[in-house]
Amino acid sequence: MIETHRSFVSEAWALRETQLHLDVLAQTESLFALSNGHIGLRGNLDEGEPAGLPGTYLNSFYEVTPLPSSEPAYGVPRAGQRTVNVTDGKIIRLLVRDEPFDVRYGELLAHERVLDLREGILRRTVDWRSPAGARVRIKSTRLVSFVQRAVAAVLYEVTAVDSSTRVVLESELVSNEALPVLDGDVRGGSGDAARLEPRMHRVKDLSALLVHRTAQSELVMAAGMDHIVDGPQDTETSVEATEDEARVLLSTDLAPGDSLRLVKVLGYGWSSRRSEQAVADQVRGAVLEARHTGWEGLLALQREYLDDYWARADVEIDGDDRLQCALRVSMFHCLQASARAEQRAIPAKGLTGTGYDGHTFWDTESFVLQLLTYTAPDAARDALRWRHETLEEARAQASHLRVAGAAFPWRTIRGQECSAYWPAGIVAFHVNADIADATLRYQAAADDPEFEREVGAELLIETARLWCSLGHLSPDGRFRIDGVTGPDEYSAIADNNVYTNLMAQRNLRAAANVAERLPDRAAELGVDAREIAAWRAGAEAMVVPFDPKLGVHSQADRFTALQRWDFAASPPEAYPLFLHYPYFDLYRKQVVKQADLVLAMHLRGDAFTDDEKARNFDYYEQLTVRDSSLSACTQAVIAAELGHLDLAFDYFGEAALIDLDDIEHNTRDGLHLAALAGTWIVAVAGFGGMRDHDGELSFKPRLPGQLKRLGFGMLFRGRGLRVVVAQDSATYSLVSGEELAVSHHGEALTVAVGQPQTRPIPPPRPAMPAPTQPAGRAPARREPGA
Amino acid sequence: MIETHRSFVSEAWALRETQLHLDVLAQTESLFALSNGHIGLRGNLDEGEPAGLPGTYLNSFYEVTPLPSSEPAYGVPRAGQRTVNVTDGKIIRLLVRDEPFDVRYGELLAHERVLDLREGILRRTVDWRSPAGARVRIKSTRLVSFVQRAVAAVLYEVTAVDSSTRVVLESELVSNEALPVLDGDVRGGSGDAARLEPRMHRVKDLSALLVHRTAQSELVMAAGMDHIVDGPQDTETSVEATEDEARVLLSTDLAPGDSLRLVKVLGYGWSSRRSEQAVADQVRGAVLEARHTGWEGLLALQREYLDDYWARADVEIDGDDRLQCALRVSMFHCLQASARAEQRAIPAKGLTGTGYDGHTFWDTESFVLQLLTYTAPDAARDALRWRHETLEEARAQASHLRVAGAAFPWRTIRGQECSAYWPAGIVAFHVNADIADATLRYQAAADDPEFEREVGAELLIETARLWCSLGHLSPDGRFRIDGVTGPDEYSAIADNNVYTNLMAQRNLRAAANVAERLPDRAAELGVDAREIAAWRAGAEAMVVPFDPKLGVHSQADRFTALQRWDFAASPPEAYPLFLHYPYFDLYRKQVVKQADLVLAMHLRGDAFTDDEKARNFDYYEQLTVRDSSLSACTQAVIAAELGHLDLAFDYFGEAALIDLDDIEHNTRDGLHLAALAGTWIVAVAGFGGMRDHDGELSFKPRLPGQLKRLGFGMLFRGRGLRVVVAQDSATYSLVSGEELAVSHHGEALTVAVGQPQTRPIPPPRPAMPAPTQPAGRAPARREPGA
Repeated sequence: MIETHRSFVSEAWALRETQLHLDVLAQTESLFALSNGHIGLRGNLDEGEPAGLPGTYLNSFYEVTPLPSSEPAYGVPRAGQRTVNVTDGKIIRLLVRDEPFDVRYGELLAHERVLDLREGILRRTVDWRSPAGARVRIKSTRLVSFVQRAVAAVLYEVTAVDSSTRVVLESELVSNEALPVLDGDVRGGSGDAARLEPRMHRVKDLSALLVHRTAQSELVMAAGMDHIVDGPQDTETSVEATEDEARVLLSTDLAPGDSLRLVKVLGYGWSSRRSEQAVADQVRGAVLEARHTGWEGLLALQREYLDDYWARADVEIDGDDRLQCALRVSMFHCLQASARAEQRAIPAKGLTGTGYDGHTFWDTESFVLQLLTYTAPDAARDALRWRHETLEEARAQASHLRVAGAAFPWRTIRGQECSAYWPAGIVAFHVNADIADATLRYQAAADDPEFEREVGAELLIETARLWCSLGHLSPDGRFRIDGVTGPDEYSAIADNNVYTNLMAQRNLRAAANVAERLPDRAAELGVDAREIAAWRAGAEAMVVPFDPKLGVHSQADRFTALQRWDFAASPPEAYPLFLHYPYFDLYRKQVVKQADLVLAMHLRGDAFTDDEKARNFDYYEQLTVRDSSLSACTQAVIAAELGHLDLAFDYFGEAALIDLDDIEHNTRDGLHLAALAGTWIVAVAGFGGMRDHDGELSFKPRLPGQLKRLGFGMLFRGRGLRVVVAQDSATYSLVSGEELAVSHHGEALTVAVGQPQTRPIPPPRPAMPAPTQPAGRAPARREPGA
Repeated sequence: MIETHRSFVSEAWALRETQLHLDVLAQTESLFALSNGHIGLRGNLDEGEPAGLPGTYLNSFYEVTPLPSSEPAYGVPRAGQRTVNVTDGKIIRLLVRDEPFDVRYGELLAHERVLDLREGILRRTVDWRSPAGARVRIKSTRLVSFVQRAVAAVLYEVTAVDSSTRVVLESELVSNEALPVLDGDVRGGSGDAARLEPRMHRVKDLSALLVHRTAQSELVMAAGMDHIVDGPQDTETSVEATEDEARVLLSTDLAPGDSLRLVKVLGYGWSSRRSEQAVADQVRGAVLEARHTGWEGLLALQREYLDDYWARADVEIDGDDRLQCALRVSMFHCLQASARAEQRAIPAKGLTGTGYDGHTFWDTESFVLQLLTYTAPDAARDALRWRHETLEEARAQASHLRVAGAAFPWRTIRGQECSAYWPAGIVAFHVNADIADATLRYQAAADDPEFEREVGAELLIETARLWCSLGHLSPDGRFRIDGVTGPDEYSAIADNNVYTNLMAQRNLRAAANVAERLPDRAAELGVDAREIAAWRAGAEAMVVPFDPKLGVHSQADRFTALQRWDFAASPPEAYPLFLHYPYFDLYRKQVVKQADLVLAMHLRGDAFTDDEKARNFDYYEQLTVRDSSLSACTQAVIAAELGHLDLAFDYFGEAALIDLDDIEHNTRDGLHLAALAGTWIVAVAGFGGMRDHDGELSFKPRLPGQLKRLGFGMLFRGRGLRVVVAQDSATYSLVSGEELAVSHHGEALTVAVGQPQTRPIPPPRPAMPAPTQPAGRAPARREPGA
């Protein structure tokens, strides 16, 4: 066990913390965060202090912030966007005989927190003796409702243990909380927190409402609370509010064994257009509805929502209980980040922290949307609809950069480019092809013609236009895309990055296909036959660098000719390299931060032969240091495909435990959502061997020796499919819907409800010797259950 | 005539302004700036207002400023340095019958300013009628002493014209002047001015002293003034001082024709180590000495200093009076920037403005030091000694970047890297070879063994170490320098930039040579035989990219294979391109901001055949847009060498008039010192055909049809040489020193005092057709005298 996580217990359906360790408090706040994609509450202690990072977020509620530069350049934005810590409604302070309950004082006799993945709640139980000797038991249960989008709730119970005790509860709304100053790690997010301007505060009975506004982005938000109290007859209550704080006070005497029980209902809302009054009214309504539903009602709806989710999506693995837990935690957090995002962004950290300023990157489409497309397709659809709604900004950016079509931002909240370091941001244009790829995947999996007509066609066409303008036909008739940056952030501004070019190729073909399939829609978008022909010509002539001497693809032109990084001279403490070496040195040498060519071999596996894949993987494994969380899962998928099952299993462990083991030392800033999605990707695309090229569903399952069984569910064109893989066979069962054609290790199968198909798993093709990694960078050897 | 310079008159030895145009006031402040390399006074009006940019600078007196970045990266500095506008001693306000003299009010009956290049003074004469009708004549003469380094002085005379007039003079020292807010052009300099903290203020008789300190860099500066008054008997005087202001007041009544005459003596000093009291005393001493020398004495010393300078260095051209003036103005400003810099930096703008924050770049060594080496060798020596004194910072930077030897900064005041945009800054490592080249040039021209031992050897060796570590021997045995940036700022992070590699090659050879010549010094510096062998091996194996298909050198690997910039689609208003296109697009296409390969053909002309030069020049002319002031002069030199004499003459005009015609629209921020030095370079290396490869002095003079005669003086190994070129012959005369071997168009000559050698100029080798420039980017056709 890694020292910093000594108190986590992995259970099949829960993440349990049995002791409170303040040194990892911020990490646990991220892991115990609750969200529905609209509201996000970090797992802060109810009483507010101590805290690693207090956090309450509303999806896409941001402030505009300067992007300072002492040498500004054309095309580099001077203003960015940053998520805002909004009014904190989680806080319930407790006074025990006038002493504040604070785990740092008195005696914490017992502590437990449980993230329950089926109930969708965070439970906390505490047994505490105050410095003056009064003992209380506290139970709190927190939820953010998947069903009532604007609602969160807390059930808080305090019980006197062995003597009569006067207790006071202060249930609060707090705006403009003091936040800790972050250190300099660029991944953490930038600068000071934005202040909210108070606009309105109201109290009534046991309810209160605060309305605030951001100064620059001029977004209005409201937070409301109401309370249902169950305690001794003489419990006194009062309510008060100032601009930045509202407070409901409960005061009572508890006899030994007696409890004071408080249900706190929270409502949140924001708007960029509606009036303060309208937003306030919306929140009042949400609070009222939640109060009406009641605590038990909210719990029941939550359970029902999750039962439905797990029934269609659960992944079971037999042979590694810790990974089983990690996998479900991962899927749960991905669902939390997206379920009710509803045409807003899915940030890299979800709504679990302020890492990367709350920005969304390409990894949402390339990783998270793989999972969502097959397990929560409506969430995938809404995420793509969000991109579509930002087309205006993407077209403006393309025009600003003097290219055609749409240039989606490298990082953003609202659609505008917020990247200030252009070599690894603005020119990583592959984000456009990634959005196109996710669009294609969703369209194939969901069979959603309305989406294709309204959203998909335009996304595919506008991104294709970018490629046609960004690339050019060279005199020798090849289509080149020069001077751009691929996924690997230890290379930049390179010519003909294989990943970018292959993804652009698919993008161009897809645009041509959709334009031909929907000629009227294409005409509306100004597409003519010449443009379609240009897309096809560009796709056909696309350059894909290959080094014939080495027999491997070159990640980009000249890459395989570069000097190799001196891995032997890079000690463990020199990682991540970008914190210890200048970019120019990383850029000019063969060293790979994260899967790039290897990711191309996954997402564009149709463009490589098996031999090429084997040789490429062997070559790039020796160069890949995994200084990014977006790598292990992809390496696992290709390792599994190539028969390196032990290695795949090790990478599976690394992807799954990224936040539980705080592998990148920044889980405090929020969870690594794409890596969590990657855990699912390893299970389904790695050991399940699922591919979806050209909308065809195929499987080449094969388990590592460590696993006895793997089962997973998927939705595909309205059908529910369940696949169970054992060491020597795989069974495909249709749970619902019309019969479905899939393939198993190249054999075509048709599955229908009630007619599961079982097939043996053929012996693996002889794998090459297991590839090696740079000195010291092999993944941790995974012993099952470790 | 360009509209913005309608009032300049070019004279042989003066720049005369005959009318005051406030719209070009800031530009004239730069052109009329006075400096001795230690003190710099912008040509602000005596009365302080109106002003474009008030400016008083002390060489290397800077404040530390943050270099903000929202995505900080390893190796990119977070703090920079910025020149400070120090206490302004130029100000003499005049009240005429209680009305302040201000050119914006009343009536300016006559105005003239003259920068006298032989006297080294700025003269101003004014005839003004106040709003109330009182008429005065004002004459002011300002100098910054070349001889008394800490001293400046002003002679101010006011004369009543046609009626008795009461006048008051307020002679001031003003700290923390209000400065205008600069617009966003990145070249202008960054952000707000630094404030000076007041530390001491003193008055005595008609003298005053202010001492201030910078808050972050903790530098102490003092400014002192004293006055000699000559006026009517009853002239009243008083003196006063506060923290940021000292003022001597003179008040008197002038009868018609009577004058009040004031000599204001200014002293300046600063220190990073000495106490405030010590700096104050030093300034008091300087003021006292200047007062003792007196106005006439200061004038005489100034004239003597300049007579000496012009006698050895003057360049005469017969055939274009305006260029004659521009050439002398250029040389004068280069002398002003360097004469008494004394082991401090020579900034890109000299001490004439705050452009580029007062930083020094590679162009000091590569352009300004060409001129200084042959005309003011002590100043060249001191500039290189300054680099030597910053070796500690350069070694620290190399170590920080994890390379060996010394990495001199791209931009700096005190030696620390201040570049925040690394692709066009930190990795433009050629600055190291440029310093080495300037060292070699100085050593060859000055024959200064003490310098070589104390300074030169270490500079050559530490820079060579950088190259050996930055480059590497590839498997095919070639020495490559990958991923660095050459002079052309429209390319970056390229492999094997020809300029960089050839200059590094010279650097490596020079280090090996000096180490062998001074074995004891080399041993002190830790050099062993293996290291020398590695330098020689690297130099011999150096890659120099050549495109055999096109028959031209490729500016760097792959350059000639890139897409060509679409010049036809770039209208005139799209220039400079970097203000209208993103860098990624410039970097990935064939478009050249400034001479790069062409500069290599000048400074490393020994590495190219004549045919290569001709083809290369033809090729790169078609790509070069001259969006930098560091280009026209070099293009002129190579155009002249290749026989394109008309084109060379056009470029000569552009280089010479860069500030007089404000060609880059930013002369307001300070003069383009390197381009001004470039004017001399065109005359001497272009039309004079002077080269100094391997320390041999050779000439291949040839005049354009527009010039009848060109004469220039040079110092070389203690000799004074004068070369006079006519259309058909050239004469070499030794003015002083022992006989000297030179060559004329390949013919060896020996010149001795009293034995001038005249040789015919051979007919030119047939030039290729005149090369073309990108659409709209040909230099202005120069009609003599235009």
